[in-house]
Amino acid sequence: MPKLDFDVITLGHGSGGVLTNKLLKSGVFDLLKNPLLDTHHDGAVFELNGKTAFSTDSYVISPIFFPGGNIGELAINGTVNDLAMCGAQPKYLSLSFIIEEGLKMTEFWEVLVSIKKAADTAGVQIVTGDTKVVEKGKGDKLFINTAGVGQLMSKANIDMNQVKPGDKVIVSDSIANHGIAVMSIREGLEFETSILSDTRPLNGIVGKLIEEFGYDIHLLRDATRGGVASVLNEIAQDAQVGIEILQKHTPVDPEVEGACEMLGLDPLYVANEGVFMIIADAQIADDIVQMLRTFEGSKKATILGEIVEGHKRQVILQSAIGGKRVLNMLVGEQLPRIC
Amino acid sequence: MPKLDFDVITLGHGSGGVLTNKLLKSGVFDLLKNPLLDTHHDGAVFELNGKTAFSTDSYVISPIFFPGGNIGELAINGTVNDLAMCGAQPKYLSLSFIIEEGLKMTEFWEVLVSIKKAADTAGVQIVTGDTKVVEKGKGDKLFINTAGVGQLMSKANIDMNQVKPGDKVIVSDSIANHGIAVMSIREGLEFETSILSDTRPLNGIVGKLIEEFGYDIHLLRDATRGGVASVLNEIAQDAQVGIEILQKHTPVDPEVEGACEMLGLDPLYVANEGVFMIIADAQIADDIVQMLRTFEGSKKATILGEIVEGHKRQVILQSAIGGKRVLNMLVGEQLPRIC
Repeated sequence: MPKLDFDVITLGHGSGGVLTNKLLKSGVFDLLKNPLLDTHHDGAVFELNGKTAFSTDSYVISPIFFPGGNIGELAINGTVNDLAMCGAQPKYLSLSFIIEEGLKMTEFWEVLVSIKKAADTAGVQIVTGDTKVVEKGKGDKLFINTAGVGQLMSKANIDMNQVKPGDKVIVSDSIANHGIAVMSIREGLEFETSILSDTRPLNGIVGKLIEEFGYDIHLLRDATRGGVASVLNEIAQDAQVGIEILQKHTPVDPEVEGACEMLGLDPLYVANEGVFMIIADAQIADDIVQMLRTFEGSKKATILGEIVEGHKRQVILQSAIGGKRVLNMLVGEQLPRIC
Repeated sequence: MPKLDFDVITLGHGSGGVLTNKLLKSGVFDLLKNPLLDTHHDGAVFELNGKTAFSTDSYVISPIFFPGGNIGELAINGTVNDLAMCGAQPKYLSLSFIIEEGLKMTEFWEVLVSIKKAADTAGVQIVTGDTKVVEKGKGDKLFINTAGVGQLMSKANIDMNQVKPGDKVIVSDSIANHGIAVMSIREGLEFETSILSDTRPLNGIVGKLIEEFGYDIHLLRDATRGGVASVLNEIAQDAQVGIEILQKHTPVDPEVEGACEMLGLDPLYVANEGVFMIIADAQIADDIVQMLRTFEGSKKATILGEIVEGHKRQVILQSAIGGKRVLNMLVGEQLPRIC
């Protein structure tokens, strides 16, 4: 951390004046340094050609530090992954802070360092940003927004309209780790094993999948808020199809399953930050799973179910003991501020 | 407003589940409708070619409704203007909400309608977004982030390195209206006249200026947080030049000047949302002012001063009575949460 003559963020750091400049110039700009950010203009200018993907998310996770990560890397990985789910390679990100007055500079710096590391890992540059400060009690330590642009991969054809009966539904890894990791620390629960958030960039894996399987990959979605069940419900509704999944094929780590039972949560509704769903042509589904399993971060990939002709707009779960039931979208809020 | 079975926003509206879908599908998507947003994917995909500008800002203004506008149009105009200041025509915006639980749906809807209107006026499309909800007491009604992309105008050459001694400093309109409008309602002050925020899109005016004067416009900056004085100080520092301005040339409406005196504020430090600074070649400065004065929203345009060889990195103000003093960057925070 750079030597600074302040320990906490104050309202003046959001004034646009001397303190804002001090905060940015004594550290932030140096840490995130790149030629586009270095212009210090109201925005960044770069060359883009062809089809561009554009996405944004705000992050309000509480607490801002959790097992396996913090709000900073979450904010980078989240937008990187949203772009990857569009079939794009993320390139440039914006970064905007809403800081509650009183945030410790050491905490802010730790988040910033994670942001830098996550951006480097994902291969993206932070090129423009904003810093606002609100009074104590009008925020909660730190909210972050990122937006990002990326270039569509030439072989990508991700489109809701491509989803058709017979397609397979693949899940990239074991689920519910992120939500349970955050819950464990938030509720002061102690689990026997240490469950970590799965926050990670997915653009590397997605890039290789699209390179290899191109047009046969019909849809990609990361299973964040609302978990796998809510994402599948959205797909069923938007693509006007039925979906059937097999509970026994749902990859859940034993310690996560145990924690879910203890907390009364269904892992299918718990948020992930590094797990995604793939809807693909049946013929290549096994090959996709094989390829996913060669990567760290998708070792537990499996075919979860399929798109069906019947019961349009519904997701049906076949339970481990053979019964079938409708898997609804998440009702209410199980885990507020999980991302 | 669409008929909804809820009156206030609850945590569940940020869950990613049923309530989030209900909020978006019963109204928001319809109101902001366009083919890119209609895909309901994690991001939007569009064609962009050539040089692209990218910018973001978060808006935390309090109160969210103020004389002359609300946080919604501010969030659209702000990012539109940041892109315009890069010499770009804004095209696509992202829109991200952080809502405090309990926000009245009528208030949220009023903001949304303003967003739609402002986007239409500026000629931009909202193509992707996000909604988060935080617990009561962990936010303040509504924070908004927008990010935007636009295409650089072919004749634009906005660059800090272009700024050179002899260039003129032009201000596009009378200053300090936004800050004083917000202060008037926040502090429960009653002024004899009603001062309104100057929030407005500047891309139309900027487009015409660049079309006409192209490479002779060296730098554009909107004078938001920290006001004209802070922006000029940033330019002096980043471009390593001196700046001299004449107080008597500073356009301030009489009622704003009166309010500033009453509140002990210097209008040069008060935030604007529709005023920008132009650094341009001296030969065309008068022509720029003439052109600006033909537009609604820049009728008071004037040459405020010039870039000088001496006292590098400093802004010098020549007072109405002839004395000279250094005009420093804003120290501390005069008007917290003004944007």
